[in-house]
Amino acid sequence: MSLLVFGSTALDSISTPKKKNPRLLGGSGSHAAVAASFFVSPKLIGVVGKDFPSKYTSLLKKHKVNLKGLKVREGKTFHWAGEYEVNMNNRRTLSTELGVVEGYSPVLPAAHRKAKYVLLANNPPGSQEAIIDQLEKPKFVVADTMDLWMNVAMNDLRSLLKRVDMLVLNDSEARQLTSDDNVVSSLPKLHKFGPKYVIVKKGEHGAILSSRKGLFVAPAFPLTKVEDPTGAGDSFVGAMVGYLAKTGGSIDSCIRKAILYGSVVASFCCEGFGLNRTTKTTRSEINQRLRALEKMTRV
Amino acid sequence: MSLLVFGSTALDSISTPKKKNPRLLGGSGSHAAVAASFFVSPKLIGVVGKDFPSKYTSLLKKHKVNLKGLKVREGKTFHWAGEYEVNMNNRRTLSTELGVVEGYSPVLPAAHRKAKYVLLANNPPGSQEAIIDQLEKPKFVVADTMDLWMNVAMNDLRSLLKRVDMLVLNDSEARQLTSDDNVVSSLPKLHKFGPKYVIVKKGEHGAILSSRKGLFVAPAFPLTKVEDPTGAGDSFVGAMVGYLAKTGGSIDSCIRKAILYGSVVASFCCEGFGLNRTTKTTRSEINQRLRALEKMTRV
Repeated sequence: MSLLVFGSTALDSISTPKKKNPRLLGGSGSHAAVAASFFVSPKLIGVVGKDFPSKYTSLLKKHKVNLKGLKVREGKTFHWAGEYEVNMNNRRTLSTELGVVEGYSPVLPAAHRKAKYVLLANNPPGSQEAIIDQLEKPKFVVADTMDLWMNVAMNDLRSLLKRVDMLVLNDSEARQLTSDDNVVSSLPKLHKFGPKYVIVKKGEHGAILSSRKGLFVAPAFPLTKVEDPTGAGDSFVGAMVGYLAKTGGSIDSCIRKAILYGSVVASFCCEGFGLNRTTKTTRSEINQRLRALEKMTRV
Repeated sequence: MSLLVFGSTALDSISTPKKKNPRLLGGSGSHAAVAASFFVSPKLIGVVGKDFPSKYTSLLKKHKVNLKGLKVREGKTFHWAGEYEVNMNNRRTLSTELGVVEGYSPVLPAAHRKAKYVLLANNPPGSQEAIIDQLEKPKFVVADTMDLWMNVAMNDLRSLLKRVDMLVLNDSEARQLTSDDNVVSSLPKLHKFGPKYVIVKKGEHGAILSSRKGLFVAPAFPLTKVEDPTGAGDSFVGAMVGYLAKTGGSIDSCIRKAILYGSVVASFCCEGFGLNRTTKTTRSEINQRLRALEKMTRV
């Protein structure tokens, strides 16, 4: 079934102690859409500037990402620069240039309004809700978010969460949103914001899904080397929703396998800078790693 | 089959921001033996002073812990005092009084030398190896250890690790022992020290088993409240080896379920101070939580 992905399409300059990687294709929308593209042809909604390299447009098209909703505006593409410390656990933002994102209001092309599966990847919650306003009859709406919006746009976030089926956030954000130190006891509080499904991402430690069917404790794929975790969370949720859209079946019966696919595609993302490794991944590699992960968790 | 548990039998004074708990029954041996007692009647080896409260002797006996190898010496029982910070993640040692542990060399009663399953819970590696020297023909020897011994008794630890079937340690210790920041890539290096089975404990994030059968990514039981994690690692390994000794079957075919039992008993340990909750737990509660955990991880 059709999948709409709304998120940022950015240029990321990522430094580590060993390497500098200027102006890679990045952003929550790019990572999520490429991850979803292993399962369906996602419709990406976002904005870039006139400086957006045509090689990145080609790369997205090669992955069958539908770019009809990717607006090109006069000005510069959103640019984020950050650096990781030696152990890859601490990230520091060096600069953020909003560029064409400033003053952008997403407008869905008519054909996109019928989308059944919708991923609102990390973006201001007001813009995420503006997408929901334009949808005709979505089946499953997922929103990712981040701590920044809890600090600067909490009312918008509350309003958004009443209208989504699933919330995805990381463990420190779950703690912040609920003022609860314990991730497990934060889950019922997160449901009270609205979503029937909540996923707390824990990076290398996997994720926890909470729903009326109880908890699912999901593993991350064990990696011997992490080159760059930027976008891993977006890849996780992109692949997960991509798989759900591909099957089109009941969420409850598909969600666990969908989460494993999310873990697997996120693991490829971590193995290269930006989208370098993800875009070289094949569906057969993904299936192989999925089978390995299933074997590693089966009792 | 018979299980021997060698470890410390201590008095623990544990403070948290909310509570002070003086002179609780503690120590790696006590926690591991009580955890194992849900499956077999473990033979505990250790030493206490004349001040060791008789109520604790009774408690261990009530749990069918065989105390023939628990030596009572003139002097004071090993005493550890520590405090946890608000989020229960950071522990600080306030004082350590060795007491009767100083100058103690473990001697196995003749009947104990035939033990098939042996858990060398955390203790100086030289003393752990002294136990192996006295065994006749053990089937499966597991050693737990800690960072302290890597700092002060590395040669003893190297010597010990050549003679054990399984090493259990936590993630920061795995990093320290191998000088490898990545837990997954540290695993082959840990096998090179000797053990065919390695388990890296990750607290609330579960554990990873590495063996010739590959990796097993094991979940922790999700807890909404952690009162005191002291002894959780010892409970984990105690229950795991207890279950293995109970079944007596091939390690490879039982180890994954054994690890889940470890996670479950460790979860009860965390729900009370010292052994307060573990000693109130029933086998039926353990089985119930095991089934719940299996359900939470099944894809």
